Amino acid sequence: MKKATVLLAHGSSDPHWLEPFDQLKNSIAQQLPAGTPLKLAYMELAEPMLEDVVIELVKCGYEHVDVLPLFFAAGRHLRKDVPEMLDTVQQTLQQQGFASELELHPPIGLEPEVASAISQVVIRQLS
Amino acid sequence: MKKATVLLAHGSSDPHWLEPFDQLKNSIAQQLPAGTPLKLAYMELAEPMLEDVVIELVKCGYEHVDVLPLFFAAGRHLRKDVPEMLDTVQQTLQQQGFASELELHPPIGLEPEVASAISQVVIRQLS
Repeated sequence: MKKATVLLAHGSSDPHWLEPFDQLKNSIAQQLPAGTPLKLAYMELAEPMLEDVVIELVKCGYEHVDVLPLFFAAGRHLRKDVPEMLDTVQQTLQQQGFASELELHPPIGLEPEVASAISQVVIRQLS
Repeated sequence: MKKATVLLAHGSSDPHWLEPFDQLKNSIAQQLPAGTPLKLAYMELAEPMLEDVVIELVKCGYEHVDVLPLFFAAGRHLRKDVPEMLDTVQQTLQQQGFASELELHPPIGLEPEVASAISQVVIRQLS
């Protein structure tokens, strides 16, 4: 099964906010084998939008898309808005004859390594 | 000079979103010497609000408050809304006879350790 990954950030109309996400995505891409399908997408307020990126990947032949949210926590967006968005995309694709598995993962901020790195930075700044 | 630290998160009306921030704050507090003044506050949509926490700290005798944003990046909120909020709080406190230094730090997500931890988690999930 051909798999692709989308890093999902919230999005902002402020380009200063978007910049670190681009850097992060590029840094991750450089650490992966060349050609690993990795995209960055936004939920709202910025391009490219999640829907468009997922549709493009599936139409390019990726049958499974993992969506990894660059969020600190799962609130309404990740528990309701994004799942609904992915359901709609999947139905649209299905009607067009494209079968796809779209898998939304837990937010990256909940991972112990990330929480631990944040703790260490705060503790260092406080010392 | 008596110093205190406020961890600032965006805030959400969804209690599920708030929970990891509470856990993070508690985990950090446990790693600091007992009695280190460390608070968690939200910019909007959740209590306690940043303004209220800062005012309380200053009125309790803390002359310098470091505000560490638990944000991935600095957009309009951290470049405009929060500085304006802190300016207003400082002026209000000054009028009431309380001198205070309120220092807004860069967002924690821009710190290399945090970016690196995020990269490592993504790369592991992709392997």
